[in-house]
Amino acid sequence: MINKTRAIILRKRPKGLPTSEIFKIITEPLPNLQKGELLIKSRYISVDPYMRNRMNPGASYIAPYVLNKVITGNLLGEVIESKAPGYNPGESVVGALGWREYNTAPAKQITRIDVDKIPESAYLSTLGLTGLTAYFGMLEIARPKASEVVVISGAAGAVGSIAGQIARIKGCRVVGITGSDQKVLCLKEELHFDEAINYKKQGNLRKPLKEACPEGIDIYFDNVGGKISDSVMCLLNNHSRIVLCGQIALYNLSRIDRGPRMGPQLLIHRTRMQGFNVYDYCSGFSKAKAEISGWLFDGQLKGPVNIICGFENIPEAFLGLFRGDNIGKQLVKL
Amino acid sequence: MINKTRAIILRKRPKGLPTSEIFKIITEPLPNLQKGELLIKSRYISVDPYMRNRMNPGASYIAPYVLNKVITGNLLGEVIESKAPGYNPGESVVGALGWREYNTAPAKQITRIDVDKIPESAYLSTLGLTGLTAYFGMLEIARPKASEVVVISGAAGAVGSIAGQIARIKGCRVVGITGSDQKVLCLKEELHFDEAINYKKQGNLRKPLKEACPEGIDIYFDNVGGKISDSVMCLLNNHSRIVLCGQIALYNLSRIDRGPRMGPQLLIHRTRMQGFNVYDYCSGFSKAKAEISGWLFDGQLKGPVNIICGFENIPEAFLGLFRGDNIGKQLVKL
Repeated sequence: MINKTRAIILRKRPKGLPTSEIFKIITEPLPNLQKGELLIKSRYISVDPYMRNRMNPGASYIAPYVLNKVITGNLLGEVIESKAPGYNPGESVVGALGWREYNTAPAKQITRIDVDKIPESAYLSTLGLTGLTAYFGMLEIARPKASEVVVISGAAGAVGSIAGQIARIKGCRVVGITGSDQKVLCLKEELHFDEAINYKKQGNLRKPLKEACPEGIDIYFDNVGGKISDSVMCLLNNHSRIVLCGQIALYNLSRIDRGPRMGPQLLIHRTRMQGFNVYDYCSGFSKAKAEISGWLFDGQLKGPVNIICGFENIPEAFLGLFRGDNIGKQLVKL
Repeated sequence: MINKTRAIILRKRPKGLPTSEIFKIITEPLPNLQKGELLIKSRYISVDPYMRNRMNPGASYIAPYVLNKVITGNLLGEVIESKAPGYNPGESVVGALGWREYNTAPAKQITRIDVDKIPESAYLSTLGLTGLTAYFGMLEIARPKASEVVVISGAAGAVGSIAGQIARIKGCRVVGITGSDQKVLCLKEELHFDEAINYKKQGNLRKPLKEACPEGIDIYFDNVGGKISDSVMCLLNNHSRIVLCGQIALYNLSRIDRGPRMGPQLLIHRTRMQGFNVYDYCSGFSKAKAEISGWLFDGQLKGPVNIICGFENIPEAFLGLFRGDNIGKQLVKL
């Protein structure tokens, strides 16, 4: 009988770029399973850039992590023991749970998944919050029209890689900005982006962007912020849209960064710049998942996944997000 | 017979804050009136901040003024002579015409107005592009809901003063930011803003803004940009909207200004920030004018107007916009 688990706590709040010191692996007892609860063995744990914001003390759209408590996030696991009617050992589930090898949780907070036809990792990427974020950001905020020009920053990241493919499905010309030649290759060869640019090889990003977008930019799906965004904003077309999906370049700054004021640009081009959060679209999740599944089945959409193995490597996988280690969704397999 | 007119040309393009040197008053011959044309004597000439952008050489949403040619803008005049069927001397008209005492123009480019019930200056303010800009910016872009908190920068300006009143009509709490105690008094006493702040008397605008908006800001109608906007952005609520209507603080800068990067703020609060131009809403002008007229008639909306007399004072009236001389719409009466 399993009565304890390893877990990862937030030992201190990071200042600037997080380091492994902020995490600590502990062993803690598992509470006795209550009526309606499940004991779940973790199989895949998702690490995501938004978690960096939860490590700050201040309020955000989501509650901050509590110091010296176990970090929570999305994970996929297997039911080991069930005290909830209708749930059986061996079933696969996803949910927002602790960074633990084993979690106990009320079944009503957990979603059962079907892993017969769809690879289980997809439930944390294309069919998880990552894919839904790309879906609603692109289709509800950006609202692409066929033949429009779409630029994606952080294009080889979990959300960016999917957002770009969705724009292509909608008939757009899609240009990705990314941080290595390997990622450029992946975007162009595997994910069929029309163009991809390694910004680290460019002194002035505006030049290759202008070459890739000679008729300007209609949609900017921004996962990054900062200087990369400055370059994009100089090429906006009239009635362009900017989806603020992430600002990973700015998450680790200990004070507010300064940059060019873009008000006049946005005014002249009648640009709509909009921050969004996938949780505002919960009512549309089922329909979105059905459409995403369709694209997965017919091969129009790929969900690249980067997998690191081992519970003890979760912190390193998280830290790697800020080094740009991953192509596609970063998961840790236990 | 009138065969010549005074006119004002753009003698040189301003660098930074414009001065009277950029203008020159000339006398030019009037062309013979052609079939379908009207000879119009100017009565009121509108000067507007957007004209500053047209003085720059670069492309914008509207063509730049041509050097050494007569400056154009909206004016109200009287038909002196008509070669257009259905138009008669003595009728009042508005149109985009030159800064001249007399203009000739095809009647189809001119709009006849009814000055029996509505004061003629209203056709260049509340019922002109100024009022329409406030109307569409507030109702189509900001979309206020009753009891929301609305902050207006440049609140005593032509557009700001109307936008704030429209928000009040829609049941919002309206706070104006302006640049003198006299303007504060006008906003609160005459235009019934809930609160008004003289930013020039504040070291840190955030403090009085927070006092005026203890529950945060839902809508920011921005005519100004720059540091005033920085203070507002720190107090945005979730799902807030920013209407980029003008950026007068930035128009006269010879290089792009720098300020805090607001991406993370906008992302966390799922803010929509949108530039707009009234010309995108032409199809709705008639309906909008009808609604504005209704508000004018029943006294819910006032259109404050600042009038300077004399053709030769047009340049000075324009320059005064950037000193904040005017309360409400700035017009020159000939």
